[in-house]
Amino acid sequence: MAMDAISVIRAKRDRGELSDEQIDWVIDAYTRGEVADYQMAALNMAILLNGMNRREIARWTAAMIASGERMDFSSLSRPTADKHSTGGVGDKITLPLAPLVAACGAAVPQLSGRGLGHTGGTLDKLESIPGWRALLSNEEMLHVLDTTGAVVCAAGDGLAPADKKLYALRDVTGTVEAIPLIASSIMSKKIAEGTGSLVLDVKVGSGAFMKTLEDARELASTMVGLGTDHGVRTVALLTGMATPLGLTAGNALEVRESVEVLAGGGPSDVVELTVALAGEMLDAAGVRDADPAKALADGSAMDVWRRMIAAQGGDPDADLPVAREQHVVRAPATGVLTRLDAYDVGVAAWRLGAGRARKEDPVQAGAGIEMHAKPGDAVTEGQPLLTLHTDTPERFDYALQSLAASYDIAAPGTGFTAPPVVLERIA
Amino acid sequence: MAMDAISVIRAKRDRGELSDEQIDWVIDAYTRGEVADYQMAALNMAILLNGMNRREIARWTAAMIASGERMDFSSLSRPTADKHSTGGVGDKITLPLAPLVAACGAAVPQLSGRGLGHTGGTLDKLESIPGWRALLSNEEMLHVLDTTGAVVCAAGDGLAPADKKLYALRDVTGTVEAIPLIASSIMSKKIAEGTGSLVLDVKVGSGAFMKTLEDARELASTMVGLGTDHGVRTVALLTGMATPLGLTAGNALEVRESVEVLAGGGPSDVVELTVALAGEMLDAAGVRDADPAKALADGSAMDVWRRMIAAQGGDPDADLPVAREQHVVRAPATGVLTRLDAYDVGVAAWRLGAGRARKEDPVQAGAGIEMHAKPGDAVTEGQPLLTLHTDTPERFDYALQSLAASYDIAAPGTGFTAPPVVLERIA
Repeated sequence: MAMDAISVIRAKRDRGELSDEQIDWVIDAYTRGEVADYQMAALNMAILLNGMNRREIARWTAAMIASGERMDFSSLSRPTADKHSTGGVGDKITLPLAPLVAACGAAVPQLSGRGLGHTGGTLDKLESIPGWRALLSNEEMLHVLDTTGAVVCAAGDGLAPADKKLYALRDVTGTVEAIPLIASSIMSKKIAEGTGSLVLDVKVGSGAFMKTLEDARELASTMVGLGTDHGVRTVALLTGMATPLGLTAGNALEVRESVEVLAGGGPSDVVELTVALAGEMLDAAGVRDADPAKALADGSAMDVWRRMIAAQGGDPDADLPVAREQHVVRAPATGVLTRLDAYDVGVAAWRLGAGRARKEDPVQAGAGIEMHAKPGDAVTEGQPLLTLHTDTPERFDYALQSLAASYDIAAPGTGFTAPPVVLERIA
Repeated sequence: MAMDAISVIRAKRDRGELSDEQIDWVIDAYTRGEVADYQMAALNMAILLNGMNRREIARWTAAMIASGERMDFSSLSRPTADKHSTGGVGDKITLPLAPLVAACGAAVPQLSGRGLGHTGGTLDKLESIPGWRALLSNEEMLHVLDTTGAVVCAAGDGLAPADKKLYALRDVTGTVEAIPLIASSIMSKKIAEGTGSLVLDVKVGSGAFMKTLEDARELASTMVGLGTDHGVRTVALLTGMATPLGLTAGNALEVRESVEVLAGGGPSDVVELTVALAGEMLDAAGVRDADPAKALADGSAMDVWRRMIAAQGGDPDADLPVAREQHVVRAPATGVLTRLDAYDVGVAAWRLGAGRARKEDPVQAGAGIEMHAKPGDAVTEGQPLLTLHTDTPERFDYALQSLAASYDIAAPGTGFTAPPVVLERIA
């Protein structure tokens, strides 16, 4: 019997398992336009609510990989290592990490995305550097990678086109937050990209898609299983996203902070996570005896950064854009900052213009939030707590609404133990 | 805050209740095209899997009624009574019932549909009468109703357009079988139509959408509640659909059987259900002292039938179409027929050309199945059990596949108690 979309939808709706044939057919037919968006939307919702088992997820991922071309980095003289973050607030880690790992001897092909909702996107951040281009041909990409050791760019249209179509659909149909769909989306792109090893940074907390450790663990182990099955050495770190990473959330603001880290300074949580992920990537790529902390301190990571930015048309010495208007939020009391909520700060930065509501919206390079204290820091009444940046000051009120209940200040001397940056490791 | 489709989908996806405002907005925005088909498909699947409570179903129904025009029969001198069947195999009851109830003193505005899948449609059946037209303007409809007492026609485009759009979408997205969506779809049309009373024939069994008494009960009580809340006197009968109604399934075949009933003959189950439903309709319409059995016997129902068919362009004396080819299935043994499956017979009739796979397909007027025995009847080896009719004999094999396991014959003398036609009454 021929396949049809309604039978596939009904099977999952009625809590059945999809067969390999059904999965192959539905992904191929959707890519070709034979299965309609409304049929795939119904199927996605059934998957979100009724789940898929490991076999189904593996087949779904394989079918999405098969929908497009695969890249091949075997011509490179160095082993490749890639990193993927599930998205958070202030997560600029890719910026210092890619040149750092390259400086230590691995090649880093980093196909990245744009921000959506309250989470920032690596390409949006780098585009605040005057002249820098995210779109490269496959040849340009390989050339930058070969000559500088690292490349951060947009994924080409040929890579997992089924996922591209499916992701856009999930985004507008309330079906983003399904572990089988998230895992297969991330892993199909990464496997098709052809990296030899992959380190996953799975965020947990208010500012992440996974709010609980349990969900994050399930997502991480699903993805590690998928990578391993496809011959990619894959490791996942579960890392905290209850509070923003570092002291900035926004595009140019985060580039500036990343350059501080590459210069040997920067906030300690950003440095710690960058070094931890670099160690995992180098280990997965089989590079021994590298010392990422030293490569940050001695300027060799900064050298790669400058070459990498220049190779994609950017000027590493150019002044970064600054927003036209600032608004300072001051501490209402003296004490200890015990909470600064990642989701609230992410939404506020997004409202100020750092993010977009729809894929086609532009972002403001200078917009975002600077934080002057992190949980655990002592604060004094009246000191600056947050500085809001935007080119559109009429948005201050809307952003401040999101920040109204975003922090807690406890009595002076209150004890506070910051949670570790890395919560768990899954291999 | 303005409404958006994703928030509404997420609320139901996460097992929340939809607010009145969310329901009103999403139905109106979908009717206007602001909410896309793929968004409504995701929402429908979430409703199918997570359900809606009585308040949500009531509001959803009201919003669909408000999406279009409402009819008004208050100018008629007689009380109105309507019937709706949830669909079955061989269910030709509307054909003798509408003229019968009209002959007893109520006005019967019967907006009917076409068959889909294995279930037949009243309009397809009547269209096998040469000249008969299903499409009437509102004025024509009122005129036929006023002059003959009964009218069976297609619902106009202005009645509950949200339901029209939603039904077509559900049909192709595997979201037909959701009690909240079935109940609101039926009742929005019936309430918008403006009938004063309504009798629901909720089918239970293999040939029906509701396979269990429990599901049928829930659907029936949901619909009775909706009707009552909107001032329509509503009653539901749960009736058996394990085996086909009567001895025919097909379009012209069922018209012929209906005319036999109107002439005072016909299969006993069809007569019994017709008289039971007529009694309920007359009671709900407040017509006292009517005797439906007598109106069948004395020819007064037949008189209304002839006028009603003629008023819509049909010739009640014309020969009905006959299929070009027949194939007889003979009893393989002597004994008692203990099962003849409604679903299998419905699928076979559909495959012979009596039904359509897609809304735009034509149907064959003469195609279908004649049954020569019903469960409980004694059969003799070699006697005709079923006669298959079609204009496209290449379909016999495909139809016979559906009939291969459709019946059981037990040893001669085996006891058999036929289940009652009417299983329960819900008011």
